Amino acid sequence: MKEKWKRFIENKYVTNFILAVIIYNSLALGLLTYPEVRNNFEPYLSWSCVACVVIFTIEIFIKLYVYGKNFFKDGWNNFDFILVAMSWIPTGGAFSSFRAFRVFRALRALRLVTHLKKLQIIIEAIIEAIPNVLWASILLVLIFYIFSIIGVTTYSEFYPEWFGTIGKSMFTLFQITTLEGWPDIAREVMSKFPLSCVYFISFILMSTFIVINVIVGVIVDAISEINSKQRRNETLNNILHTSSLEKEMKVLKEQLSRVENILDSLHGKND
Amino acid sequence: MKEKWKRFIENKYVTNFILAVIIYNSLALGLLTYPEVRNNFEPYLSWSCVACVVIFTIEIFIKLYVYGKNFFKDGWNNFDFILVAMSWIPTGGAFSSFRAFRVFRALRALRLVTHLKKLQIIIEAIIEAIPNVLWASILLVLIFYIFSIIGVTTYSEFYPEWFGTIGKSMFTLFQITTLEGWPDIAREVMSKFPLSCVYFISFILMSTFIVINVIVGVIVDAISEINSKQRRNETLNNILHTSSLEKEMKVLKEQLSRVENILDSLHGKND
Amino acid sequence: MKEKWKRFIENKYVTNFILAVIIYNSLALGLLTYPEVRNNFEPYLSWSCVACVVIFTIEIFIKLYVYGKNFFKDGWNNFDFILVAMSWIPTGGAFSSFRAFRVFRALRALRLVTHLKKLQIIIEAIIEAIPNVLWASILLVLIFYIFSIIGVTTYSEFYPEWFGTIGKSMFTLFQITTLEGWPDIAREVMSKFPLSCVYFISFILMSTFIVINVIVGVIVDAISEINSKQRRNETLNNILHTSSLEKEMKVLKEQLSRVENILDSLHGKND
Amino acid sequence: MKEKWKRFIENKYVTNFILAVIIYNSLALGLLTYPEVRNNFEPYLSWSCVACVVIFTIEIFIKLYVYGKNFFKDGWNNFDFILVAMSWIPTGGAFSSFRAFRVFRALRALRLVTHLKKLQIIIEAIIEAIPNVLWASILLVLIFYIFSIIGVTTYSEFYPEWFGTIGKSMFTLFQITTLEGWPDIAREVMSKFPLSCVYFISFILMSTFIVINVIVGVIVDAISEINSKQRRNETLNNILHTSSLEKEMKVLKEQLSRVENILDSLHGKND
Repeated sequence: MKEKWKRFIENKYVTNFILAVIIYNSLALGLLTYPEVRNNFEPYLSWSCVACVVIFTIEIFIKLYVYGKNFFKDGWNNFDFILVAMSWIPTGGAFSSFRAFRVFRALRALRLVTHLKKLQIIIEAIIEAIPNVLWASILLVLIFYIFSIIGVTTYSEFYPEWFGTIGKSMFTLFQITTLEGWPDIAREVMSKFPLSCVYFISFILMSTFIVINVIVGVIVDAISEINSKQRRNETLNNILHTSSLEKEMKVLKEQLSRVENILDSLHGKND
Repeated sequence: MKEKWKRFIENKYVTNFILAVIIYNSLALGLLTYPEVRNNFEPYLSWSCVACVVIFTIEIFIKLYVYGKNFFKDGWNNFDFILVAMSWIPTGGAFSSFRAFRVFRALRALRLVTHLKKLQIIIEAIIEAIPNVLWASILLVLIFYIFSIIGVTTYSEFYPEWFGTIGKSMFTLFQITTLEGWPDIAREVMSKFPLSCVYFISFILMSTFIVINVIVGVIVDAISEINSKQRRNETLNNILHTSSLEKEMKVLKEQLSRVENILDSLHGKND
Repeated sequence: MKEKWKRFIENKYVTNFILAVIIYNSLALGLLTYPEVRNNFEPYLSWSCVACVVIFTIEIFIKLYVYGKNFFKDGWNNFDFILVAMSWIPTGGAFSSFRAFRVFRALRALRLVTHLKKLQIIIEAIIEAIPNVLWASILLVLIFYIFSIIGVTTYSEFYPEWFGTIGKSMFTLFQITTLEGWPDIAREVMSKFPLSCVYFISFILMSTFIVINVIVGVIVDAISEINSKQRRNETLNNILHTSSLEKEMKVLKEQLSRVENILDSLHGKND
Repeated sequence: MKEKWKRFIENKYVTNFILAVIIYNSLALGLLTYPEVRNNFEPYLSWSCVACVVIFTIEIFIKLYVYGKNFFKDGWNNFDFILVAMSWIPTGGAFSSFRAFRVFRALRALRLVTHLKKLQIIIEAIIEAIPNVLWASILLVLIFYIFSIIGVTTYSEFYPEWFGTIGKSMFTLFQITTLEGWPDIAREVMSKFPLSCVYFISFILMSTFIVINVIVGVIVDAISEINSKQRRNETLNNILHTSSLEKEMKVLKEQLSRVENILDSLHGKND
């Protein structure tokens, strides 16, 4: 029985059908944002979206039945489960008041990731790169924090919008890290605090250096990984060749041993 | 007969002449945009442009005659054919009303690509890199789409210019991906929706990460390709060397076999 | 006695406690920037910060006692010492007048770097990359300087805010190097000096080329370093294999020598 | 005599003195841009600058005498010669009218490049990278040109400042390539021509792709060059090792031949 359902849920046509439902649901959610569409087709689209959620839920239930506990051992399944569970948060009556709930509906499109292996691979690659980036990020946060405190302490009185609180300061510094509109802020602040040019330029140089350092690190890691893979193959090849040489050597040694034995016996005889 | 025309169209002087006509045509189209030039020389320049198109058409007809069906097997030839065919779209009478047709004329300069091998190589390299980038692009589009729906759902009422429709939302998000002017939008939206800073910063971090991931992927692919080429040569070299060693080994073994045979016969005699 | 203190200061619980104090101190300094927090909790937070500084000072004194002169041989210890020493600069009475002193307090958070090995490694990596970048930086400064003089000589009269002095000119050029807001400046200047477009575009191309050159240099250095490390291992491996072959060869030769000797003696006997 | 002058001009103290004069001259030209300095010290600084030019000229004449025709065989010498020659363009009487001549004075600081080997190496590296970049640049220029013509044809009427002529169009497109302020232009144009979003986004994607392609190309070239250098060393190493193996083999073969000869003679005797 279980085996039958497993074959059903892993069937190519079924997975493609689910994929199609996900794409239809995503497009329908997009269409519903257009007022003209909403006015004319809202009932049909809304009901079809509910139908989609029902299909998703049935899919999840079948998977839960088929894989049992193993279902939750895969991170992507957990992610999928949460996405489908979130689809049941009611948006109907609380429509106008809880806008945030409607936002969650858009996340249903993320199910595309859990149903396309290639997208998972890319995301896993990005996630795998995070540990290499982690300590540089901590350093970046530390520098952000120090410059934020300095910014608030020094400039908050005159430029409350940019440096009013630690939070605003960090947002401003994030903006400066993206190099976007920094001269507007810097020139304005420098008109009151001429020495602030040290603050801005040192921050730009530091944050840019760390970000470049991180990117270089990611590139170097990726290349060295590929290199070491290729090398392993190559070394294996080399070992194969040298080991073939060693085998030949062994044959030679055995031949020589036989020669020696014969000679020894000859020697003995001749004595 | 066909052979003669082939030699003619592949002749160095003829191809250089065509190249010169393409460059002249491109420059003439540029000159025609200056009102002073148009007022004084328009008839001459326009007629010379028509002459260019005639030359291009003759070239294509000769090529069609010479290569026959094979002409359309090369993608660049198809591209070339379309460019020349588009040159015959009338722009004269429908001058002022169908501006778009005049735009197509500028594309004639693209024939430079179909007549310069080096440019084709660069474009082919860029096109070859696309499959590696494809899935990351789909992921990027998915994230664009989800953030667009969220943007429209949440901000369209107050900022119709930026988040009025899915299309406008996606344009705004593309702008934010290029990091251009994002603080203007973010600060404005954050004045009404303080939590939108999560929306903007998470979108910037995600899109930047994916774009960096794509660039790193292109670099790593290019390097690993070159590496594996160099390695193949090297391995070949290694194999040559080890195989020379193996040959020597074989000679040694044969020598030893002869020694053994002699000894065997000696042994036999002495018995 | 010294040994006991050393064990104490290098104890895992003690170092983690110091780390916690550093983090608490950093957070407290951040909280003190919020007026509501300052109004209600200033005495407590201020006194706890003083307590933190006292703990830091005791830590430094113990380290000085334990390591003696060796303490100052490590650059990070010197850095740490300066940070703690700066914490004793009085900020109380001179509160409102010497804002700069309050700024120094934020630097205490940098002690996190001297207490987290991983952060030190990243910073050391960035510092190590500087010599490779040094000469390119000198070239960049030279180009900045030449374009600054040209800018001041030519545009200072009409655009004193951007090109009034060498300093302002260099700031403007730094802004242009980050590509931020350069069209605003360039279009304004070009309205008076049409030829200045050569000035701006050549500067952008030059500075961008040098910066890209520097980044490429850092990437290539990092990769070639890793490559040469991997190669050393590989070569070692190869040498091990070939040397094992050479040993086998030696055994063969010795065997053959014995054979030869026996034969020689046989030959002698038979004579 | 010539030898004596050569030793003089290549003497370490003399070259360092010239270097000091170049740096002094550069700083003096910078100081002369400050009105306060000009009012008080102009005569002294101006005369010292003339003295510098005289020293430079003497240096060049000595070099011309010493190296003869070979002087002009080195590109850097030619560059140096032009810089010194340009120093003699009069700026005194034609002060206010020919501002351009005063601009040339700033270029004297470039002599630093011709006197610092390290800077030459960096510039040569950048120049060497140009051929690899050349064809991609031609492709970029072609795309700029085509989009310029389309821009002028379509938008010149309504936005003469941005798309008035081919030149203005190309400047605008260069600005868009640097991604600086492109949304301002694009949003404005899109308000009149909604389809222009295709124009802007396709241009941004194309130019960004080509620029990334160029940078990736430079990185890959640099790495593959270093790789092939390291490989050559490695292969040499391998060859050394295998050839040592081959030598050993040869010794073995000779030993065996001797054994065979002895055996042959033994065999012969026993017959």
